Amino acid sequence: MQIKVLEVGARDGLQNEPNFVATQIKVELLHQLINAGVKHIEAAAFVSPKWVPQMADGLAVVQSIWPDAQAQGVKISALVPNDKGMQTAISAGVHEVVIFSAASETFVQKNINCSIEQSIVRFQPVVQLAKSLGKRVRGSISCCLGCPYEGEVSVATVLKVIKQMQVLGVDEIDIADTIGVGAAKQVQALMQAVSHVFPIERVAGHFHDTYGQALANVAASLHAGVNVFHSSVAGLGGCPYAKGATGNLATEDLLYFLHGMGLQTGIDLSAVAQTGAWISQHLGRPNGSRAGAALMAKKSY
Amino acid sequence: MQIKVLEVGARDGLQNEPNFVATQIKVELLHQLINAGVKHIEAAAFVSPKWVPQMADGLAVVQSIWPDAQAQGVKISALVPNDKGMQTAISAGVHEVVIFSAASETFVQKNINCSIEQSIVRFQPVVQLAKSLGKRVRGSISCCLGCPYEGEVSVATVLKVIKQMQVLGVDEIDIADTIGVGAAKQVQALMQAVSHVFPIERVAGHFHDTYGQALANVAASLHAGVNVFHSSVAGLGGCPYAKGATGNLATEDLLYFLHGMGLQTGIDLSAVAQTGAWISQHLGRPNGSRAGAALMAKKSY
Repeated sequence: MQIKVLEVGARDGLQNEPNFVATQIKVELLHQLINAGVKHIEAAAFVSPKWVPQMADGLAVVQSIWPDAQAQGVKISALVPNDKGMQTAISAGVHEVVIFSAASETFVQKNINCSIEQSIVRFQPVVQLAKSLGKRVRGSISCCLGCPYEGEVSVATVLKVIKQMQVLGVDEIDIADTIGVGAAKQVQALMQAVSHVFPIERVAGHFHDTYGQALANVAASLHAGVNVFHSSVAGLGGCPYAKGATGNLATEDLLYFLHGMGLQTGIDLSAVAQTGAWISQHLGRPNGSRAGAALMAKKSY
Repeated sequence: MQIKVLEVGARDGLQNEPNFVATQIKVELLHQLINAGVKHIEAAAFVSPKWVPQMADGLAVVQSIWPDAQAQGVKISALVPNDKGMQTAISAGVHEVVIFSAASETFVQKNINCSIEQSIVRFQPVVQLAKSLGKRVRGSISCCLGCPYEGEVSVATVLKVIKQMQVLGVDEIDIADTIGVGAAKQVQALMQAVSHVFPIERVAGHFHDTYGQALANVAASLHAGVNVFHSSVAGLGGCPYAKGATGNLATEDLLYFLHGMGLQTGIDLSAVAQTGAWISQHLGRPNGSRAGAALMAKKSY
């Protein structure tokens, strides 16, 4: 069986890097990942550079990798917060745009200064424009397993947000554990509930490894029928709500797990491990992938 | 349901530390873990200090924690390689002795310079003595999911070693993934096969997190009926076959997972996280537990 792995290292991963990562490094990172067989890449967030300075060069990044992506059949996605972001996404030629909200009123209020419902209604013209241009639209829902402000998040709230995004016309839903607090039993129950309101083959598990649970949560999601997962090369990324904590699920760890399950991804783990070692060294941070670090340690014998 | 968690940080964890850890630190570590509710502790290896200098003070460590352990109903185990080690274990008053072999002829040959069968036969008098004194005996089998020399290890070999240990009279079997290469599907298949030859309630999963798979392998083992797991506070330990790679499954990550599954351990995760942060700082190494690091980061707000 084929599993769709969406690489988010260049966006969700780098977004948390304190120092600006040069455009050419971002482009090189994405080229390497494409060469490793990655077919789905979240490459940029077309948000205001005032919010996220690291994503200021998104247009240049996407334009640079576009020909290579096109030639290799790679789908590029980007976050768009509004109509302006959508216009940039159009000029960049991304295949998929990502709209976002959260399953916590407090989180949305603090981040976008409105209610969950308002946050989604605002995306209506953006989604309509995307659809009219034949773009795929993903709806990303933060804090599905817990909120840094509210603590527990109810399944009912997640389902409500999904239904609102469904009305808008999103093609795929991301169930994101933004602060990595989800545990396997909870994840499986949530994914099962989600499968009753949205086609589970178009639901993605986006897990952060803050508490070391990400891979166990992938396993739990697989049991519930999920076969789309997000991950970040070398586990790039962090958690703004717990300084020093681990970031996204590392792509290398995910690939090791999926391939071990006899599932196909079309991605070369060894090549991703090389890329993970390279980008970690470039950023001057320890390799956040355990499988990546182990594979590279083995090679250096 | 109650899960038995055996804390191996003071033995399998510290064993890989390059610098000698003072006896009083080892004792303090074990006291803290006992106070956190840990009921099963692997505290020492009564091997020659020439082999493992770090374990040279095993007798003193066990004697120091013995009264506290006795008062709290904590079971202390120790590795014994031979009759001499067994004599030390007796004088130390451990409750359980651990004999060991591996599911790889090459590994046993390189480590103990004999065949698997010889390695087990040699333990016959040791086990008899232990049994006659009412000690519990555990049989630990290294390399059950892969060998640094032979690569793949067959299920048949693991079952053969189990049967030989069973003849000797061991009470519990440790299925150890010494180099952390096991993947969930393989682990589940192995544990299912093991359950046909040995009572699964007395089979332990001992996973190293070298490739980030340990917790997914715990989940797979639970599915196969295993309810005894080994872990190491702060993920202490390393992998001598891949320098810089991760060590044992971290106790904090395991507890977060098990408690999230609604399973009981009787252990206070928050207290273990404190201990993990303390020992990591003392050893001057990064905290190898993701849950531990995240919990401590949260506390420091």
